Amino acid sequence: MTIEFPSVEPPSADVRAKASARHAVLTKPVGSLGRLEELGAWVAACQGECPPKPFTRPRVVVFAGDHGIAKHGVSAYPPEVTSQMVANFLAGGAAVNVLANVAGATVRVVDLAVDSETPVGDVKVRRGSGSIDREDALTLDEAEQAIETGRKLVDDEVDGGADLLIAGDMGIGNTTPAAVLIAALTGSEPVAVVGRGTGIDDQGWMRKTAAIRDALRRARPVINDPVALLAASSGADIAAMVGFLAQAAVRKTPVILDGVVSGAAAVVAEELAPGARDWWVAGHRSVEPAHALALGHLSLDPLLEFDMRLGEGSGAVAALPLVVMATRILAEMATFDSAGVSGPA
Amino acid sequence: MTIEFPSVEPPSADVRAKASARHAVLTKPVGSLGRLEELGAWVAACQGECPPKPFTRPRVVVFAGDHGIAKHGVSAYPPEVTSQMVANFLAGGAAVNVLANVAGATVRVVDLAVDSETPVGDVKVRRGSGSIDREDALTLDEAEQAIETGRKLVDDEVDGGADLLIAGDMGIGNTTPAAVLIAALTGSEPVAVVGRGTGIDDQGWMRKTAAIRDALRRARPVINDPVALLAASSGADIAAMVGFLAQAAVRKTPVILDGVVSGAAAVVAEELAPGARDWWVAGHRSVEPAHALALGHLSLDPLLEFDMRLGEGSGAVAALPLVVMATRILAEMATFDSAGVSGPA
Repeated sequence: MTIEFPSVEPPSADVRAKASARHAVLTKPVGSLGRLEELGAWVAACQGECPPKPFTRPRVVVFAGDHGIAKHGVSAYPPEVTSQMVANFLAGGAAVNVLANVAGATVRVVDLAVDSETPVGDVKVRRGSGSIDREDALTLDEAEQAIETGRKLVDDEVDGGADLLIAGDMGIGNTTPAAVLIAALTGSEPVAVVGRGTGIDDQGWMRKTAAIRDALRRARPVINDPVALLAASSGADIAAMVGFLAQAAVRKTPVILDGVVSGAAAVVAEELAPGARDWWVAGHRSVEPAHALALGHLSLDPLLEFDMRLGEGSGAVAALPLVVMATRILAEMATFDSAGVSGPA
Repeated sequence: MTIEFPSVEPPSADVRAKASARHAVLTKPVGSLGRLEELGAWVAACQGECPPKPFTRPRVVVFAGDHGIAKHGVSAYPPEVTSQMVANFLAGGAAVNVLANVAGATVRVVDLAVDSETPVGDVKVRRGSGSIDREDALTLDEAEQAIETGRKLVDDEVDGGADLLIAGDMGIGNTTPAAVLIAALTGSEPVAVVGRGTGIDDQGWMRKTAAIRDALRRARPVINDPVALLAASSGADIAAMVGFLAQAAVRKTPVILDGVVSGAAAVVAEELAPGARDWWVAGHRSVEPAHALALGHLSLDPLLEFDMRLGEGSGAVAALPLVVMATRILAEMATFDSAGVSGPA
């Protein structure tokens, strides 16, 4: 394996302590903003500065790719929807576009493996991926190329001013590889990770469970080699997301994780770059059963439980205003002294 | 009792059905936005229009008042903090101000019963309130005056363009009457409703529990008469909030409820104006035990569980971006037809 990430430094414990101390002098009872206080302290620790600066460029990168397994009846939607949705993102009509507009984020879509030509194919690794129940998704070279592409996307975005990152997914069939990766790395059975995805019926559920079982049999021999595991069981979109999430930590940039696909990439990224998870917060918990396993594995507690299961980064973007609020509370609230408010009796 | 509210009409079931039908043609799997879809349909039903209009004037009204019981050791903070915080709201330094800035809402503070002069005392009913463990909080006339004031505040706000309302609270000691009202109307024991409020110690917790027990003994004979109950066991700030929440429903204006004080007012408002709860959504569940009882009593499921316990409307405002997102999803997403995206296979 030639892919190596430098060791990840944790967010600043000193600054986190400063943020907690600051929370104690703002005009509110200590701890009374609950999770918003923890979140604000985490942002400050990530920025290495208290009070933290308001975010100026929260950025969503949607990773698009097709999956060979989608041809085998594991999704409610036909594979061509992947490229159609790429056009929808570019036109601003998808859910993540609307949510990002409200939250003050911008959306970029990149085509890693869509099985047709798209206007955003400059980083494409290949068209589609192997059907992971019977063949590798990618060659080892392709897996490395995808990881490097994800890493470079972070460098480009951070160099361009992005100060908070969200990785979204678009790919018909992509909850199947996500479930396989999570099952492989958490030691779970197919039935514990299979979900309805975009809304498959009972027959589809049985096909999907069998596909996960077969793919998991192919994945298990390589669970100790993240790159080989991604080659066997992911897709270029997911492998790029792995590189993206690991590199965000290397570049000390906070991330809001989305649902099961982003969760699967996160579990692999934590293997490649241990400690990366300290730079991530879980935006929500989706209804996909594998997602809860991934969050538990990473010891991440979701901000929202909204029964969402769309992907695209939608659940992460839905949680973004909470992170913004947590940040601005630390930066903008009055202190007991400045406001002339008495402290506890 | 001379206070009467007209009967409350429910949000439009027809428009709710239209919103569900619209969700089925937007470019996402049906139901994949989970709770955001329900919320959007609720907003549409409240507005009587689908797609719903974006909110133009979400408005927070903070009800400030002092409580006689605060002189008896039930709070971690001295009573003068109530008026000091009124000044802090007006200067924009409180948590709710910062959160409202992020969420796009504006904040108004009204003094119903602060025990000193404030710049916002034009609707003041009295200075402070009786210590509810030993005397009535208000006379019947004062309770009626407070309810009418809350009702008039809604009329003023709605006539001025407010299209979403949040009632916040500020009053040292106010979680004690809130706990009493909730215990009285849900048939709960003192120990089941008492909480730490702003952060009392164990001695304070015992004093507060005894105060709730004594106040509850005075409340029980009047639990079937909402106005008499408010006179016995609330305060002019809470009684006004009751009128506000009931009138919001009469004026067909959606409300995001905040924490335990807003929850107590909501439980009483539902008694005065049955069906009002259909116009409310619960912004969050606070750590105050009585709040969960109030939400259960009203069959409301909170949007956030953030371990908050500040009041001021903070938990409701924290949830406001989610309601905005839910609304704009219905209004702004592309449909399968308009975007040329294929539906389920």
